[in-house]
Amino acid sequence: MIDHASTDARPSTSVEDVTCGPIYASHKTYLGVAAPGYDDNATTPPPFTDNTTDGPGVTMQVPARRIELTDGTSFDVYDTSGPYTGYTTAADCHDLAVGLPRTREEWPHPRPVPASVSVTASSSHSSPSPVATSSGAPAPAPAPLVRTQLAWARAGLITPEMRFIAAREGVDVELVREEVAAGRAVIPANHRHPESEPMIIGKRFMTKINANIGNSAVTSSIAEEVEKMVWATRWGADTIMDLSTGKDIHATREWILRNSPVPVGTVPIYQALEKVNGDPAALTWELYRDTVIEQCEQGVDYMTVHAGVLLRYVPLAATRVTGIVSRGGSIMAAWCLAHHRESFLYTHFAELCEILARYDVTFSLGDGLRPGSIADANDEAQFAELRTLGELTRIAKAHGVQVMIEGPGHVPMDKIVENVRLEEQWCEEAPFYTLGPLATDIAPGYDHITSAIGAARIAEAGTAMLCYVTPKEHLGLPNLDDVKTGVITYKIAAHSADLAKGHPRAQERDDELSRARFEFRWKDQFALALDPDTAREFHDETLPAEPAKTAHFCSMCGPKFCSMRISQDIRDYAAEHGLETVEAIEAGMAEKSAEFADAGGRVYLPLSGA
Amino acid sequence: MIDHASTDARPSTSVEDVTCGPIYASHKTYLGVAAPGYDDNATTPPPFTDNTTDGPGVTMQVPARRIELTDGTSFDVYDTSGPYTGYTTAADCHDLAVGLPRTREEWPHPRPVPASVSVTASSSHSSPSPVATSSGAPAPAPAPLVRTQLAWARAGLITPEMRFIAAREGVDVELVREEVAAGRAVIPANHRHPESEPMIIGKRFMTKINANIGNSAVTSSIAEEVEKMVWATRWGADTIMDLSTGKDIHATREWILRNSPVPVGTVPIYQALEKVNGDPAALTWELYRDTVIEQCEQGVDYMTVHAGVLLRYVPLAATRVTGIVSRGGSIMAAWCLAHHRESFLYTHFAELCEILARYDVTFSLGDGLRPGSIADANDEAQFAELRTLGELTRIAKAHGVQVMIEGPGHVPMDKIVENVRLEEQWCEEAPFYTLGPLATDIAPGYDHITSAIGAARIAEAGTAMLCYVTPKEHLGLPNLDDVKTGVITYKIAAHSADLAKGHPRAQERDDELSRARFEFRWKDQFALALDPDTAREFHDETLPAEPAKTAHFCSMCGPKFCSMRISQDIRDYAAEHGLETVEAIEAGMAEKSAEFADAGGRVYLPLSGA
Repeated sequence: MIDHASTDARPSTSVEDVTCGPIYASHKTYLGVAAPGYDDNATTPPPFTDNTTDGPGVTMQVPARRIELTDGTSFDVYDTSGPYTGYTTAADCHDLAVGLPRTREEWPHPRPVPASVSVTASSSHSSPSPVATSSGAPAPAPAPLVRTQLAWARAGLITPEMRFIAAREGVDVELVREEVAAGRAVIPANHRHPESEPMIIGKRFMTKINANIGNSAVTSSIAEEVEKMVWATRWGADTIMDLSTGKDIHATREWILRNSPVPVGTVPIYQALEKVNGDPAALTWELYRDTVIEQCEQGVDYMTVHAGVLLRYVPLAATRVTGIVSRGGSIMAAWCLAHHRESFLYTHFAELCEILARYDVTFSLGDGLRPGSIADANDEAQFAELRTLGELTRIAKAHGVQVMIEGPGHVPMDKIVENVRLEEQWCEEAPFYTLGPLATDIAPGYDHITSAIGAARIAEAGTAMLCYVTPKEHLGLPNLDDVKTGVITYKIAAHSADLAKGHPRAQERDDELSRARFEFRWKDQFALALDPDTAREFHDETLPAEPAKTAHFCSMCGPKFCSMRISQDIRDYAAEHGLETVEAIEAGMAEKSAEFADAGGRVYLPLSGA
Repeated sequence: MIDHASTDARPSTSVEDVTCGPIYASHKTYLGVAAPGYDDNATTPPPFTDNTTDGPGVTMQVPARRIELTDGTSFDVYDTSGPYTGYTTAADCHDLAVGLPRTREEWPHPRPVPASVSVTASSSHSSPSPVATSSGAPAPAPAPLVRTQLAWARAGLITPEMRFIAAREGVDVELVREEVAAGRAVIPANHRHPESEPMIIGKRFMTKINANIGNSAVTSSIAEEVEKMVWATRWGADTIMDLSTGKDIHATREWILRNSPVPVGTVPIYQALEKVNGDPAALTWELYRDTVIEQCEQGVDYMTVHAGVLLRYVPLAATRVTGIVSRGGSIMAAWCLAHHRESFLYTHFAELCEILARYDVTFSLGDGLRPGSIADANDEAQFAELRTLGELTRIAKAHGVQVMIEGPGHVPMDKIVENVRLEEQWCEEAPFYTLGPLATDIAPGYDHITSAIGAARIAEAGTAMLCYVTPKEHLGLPNLDDVKTGVITYKIAAHSADLAKGHPRAQERDDELSRARFEFRWKDQFALALDPDTAREFHDETLPAEPAKTAHFCSMCGPKFCSMRISQDIRDYAAEHGLETVEAIEAGMAEKSAEFADAGGRVYLPLSGA
């Protein structure tokens, strides 16, 4: 239910309508997956060696999109769109003011387990240590009990979310648990966002993409942002980030969270800054902490925290071509300089961990000093911060909090792989989550493309989630068309990386589409495309007639001159004549050569099937 | 002058109008470069050790586009657009029926030099040898004298084209000569296309892009194709290929050639097939040869020849997911199977070399067996043909003919680099010219992007020219919007590769644009963009007011919340307070910490510049 009793003013508009209905030639389908219960009365102390099954279990509904093909078969694809593509029309949509069913609340979860605090405090520098807890006592303290996917995975416990994900990804559930336990994958799933369909971010799984939405002081309304969320997930966004900075931040987020089938991320410092009217120097730890708690309570699944922007790193950015381009990074840098003190995000980091652990909110440790231009890529400021993010990763994990690491930015192709290598080395292979990177600065208006080039490359090297970039990057806020273009472009980058990494099921879709292409099953080619509507529309521009959809040629060559058709003729001819190996054809060639001479050297012979 | 006495019917439409006028905030400029003459009466036999300068020289006009910046400076960029962007409006355009000035005819060229035939015939297989000359005699024959850039370069001669290119690329002319002499670069410049502005294709130079145009039996007219040529070169196409397959092939090509400032490539087998009404089996060497001569006479600068599709390779494609997708490859495969004989392109290859050498037409050895899907990438059929292209490369070079090698196609990212490695190994590092490759099959409608990902990667690995792919690939013929999108997308891929390869001048433009971005010089950011019009249009969508063009914020953050602005504040603050190193700021921190305590621990201090 939408919480109108928020700290913001009641929003001036309600959200009446979002895009509903199936995607071309496909329908929503669900796979029933059992989630056994847990014995809440078990006296065995954690860690368990296996799940008990005495408690009541449930059957979870794992979503997919089933594409119906004209040859009578079907092809299922991973689906992020929630129930919206299951509704026939917008009229069937659930009440947006109530929100989606709180499904995960009904799932059985293990009881709390130790957070496994066993951190070694880093003391190689003069800054205040971030491992001090809120009580002021230095670590270690007795390990608190927490309910996070990380702690459960370390305890050997398999959660319903892990089973859901295993079915969704088509992998063994033990792989899911292992990767989460190792901190190489995260499951962003705040207990207070029970509407979400669990997903995993980690390099052993399908590469994920995030779509940023959110209003600003200049433009856009709540209704627009909710529609952007529905629209982005329709086309494949695995998570969305609400980066609102204008009015109605709390209410906008509430509408989005209650209706989002995917995890939602935020950057709490944006709302904190609104609370102090945009003056970075006026920020305080207490105000920030309360904002984080507000957002945790609301159900935000992961939060960008720029805790690695240390006071001593700020001057490293002063001589850059583009300084600090991260909003969060620049806010914290301004605060540090204004107060000549270390960032409160760093000094209070352990307390922040305690808060996030209570909700199982995942850290997305922000790269506040990421390069904003090719000139600034892989510089001292960037890598100094990355090292600190590694230190913070260990602290967060010791508190049982899941962590991913944000990455650049603007990086030329030859410097991309080093980013992954250092991130993995310094941050214990925590999932890397990068914005592009843009491989060049010279194409504003096309930065979805400049960045897809870098994104595909960095994902191939091991980045687990890619934050999309739209054509409006650097120029304005994306509209719905831009959001779709950004999402499809990033699905391309992510899928290209999955192919290159040899992800088990990735190539199946390419092969299915290529077969449809070769066999001139035009409708199937559209249906299997990432964006069927655009593919069909482009085909119709040149050959609009319905018979062209089944024609054995395309507009590029025309009916009499088609390589695919000739190629099929060749295949038929070769099969008919047993010409399927080099040896066979060479033998046939010799034979025919004799025939050719015997027949008087006639050059022109009829072409079979032409 | 347009040759209306062609083998085709007179075109039904004349070409009245093409896009003229300068690109946003820039104007055409020319650099005068001297081309000294040659002593035609020199008795010293070639090779010369240096050019003689007794003959009359000329001053060549090397084009560039000068971008005027609002800070009073300017920035010159490589320009492919010919005089069209130098005209104020279309009314100033030269008479398209007459064509561009035949500038290169006035340049002094060296006399003919030996083609340096020293080929070792390959005889490791049973096919007829392609080294037999037209007279039927096996090689070697006495080296004929030719007038090609390759032969001149090998003879130590520097041509006007090489000087022009050195000035255009900003490199030493000796680098140009060396790379051409080694066969690692080509200068496609048919003596019969004197209207063209010389350019070079080779991995030591800027990565080039080609735009395909051409009508088909289904759609498009001569006027449309001429406009596409002008339009494609306006946005940066370094060469264009006329792939027309419908009516008026000869006339269309004539209009294009006489008005094209860039080299023009063709696939002669397309026109040959038209002459036999689309029946591959009816093709003959003689008909093909005459078509090639017709196109050489007309001025085509490079020709795709699928001479590597050998009879014994055809069955290798029969079991592929997408068979043979190259039109030329499928035509030749059909011919081979129909006749049970080796391809006439292969058996008559030496004769073809003799023809091309007379005009200095460059071979683009076609990859008729390139993969048409991810499933077929890097397979036996593809690499068998590539090996044969290596054999043909050596033969062509022995005839003094320049050669580049065409490459795939559809290739997953992890298999891309191997293509370059094998091409360089087998084809003596002849310039690689690839179509994409597409890194995935699943995004028809977005194949400019799927292929830009592969193109950037393969160019970084050493590919010298990229053939663009438009959003309409696999679906229809590109319109003007698609051509522009394809060209800009490929300029991005090429430039990204140049950055990654550390091309000397590549990053200058990124840095210039990034400085403009950081300093909120919006107009300069547009002007330095690959597509200023789109960048400006996108910015205007959100902030249309003219004052926003000079505003120190953008629509993403709004006026009070801008990372760039805060970043500038930090820079100013750091400079004012001498906080420019880690040491300084740590010293400052200690001092301030003491002040902080002394002042009673006040947390809130004013932020300078906020």
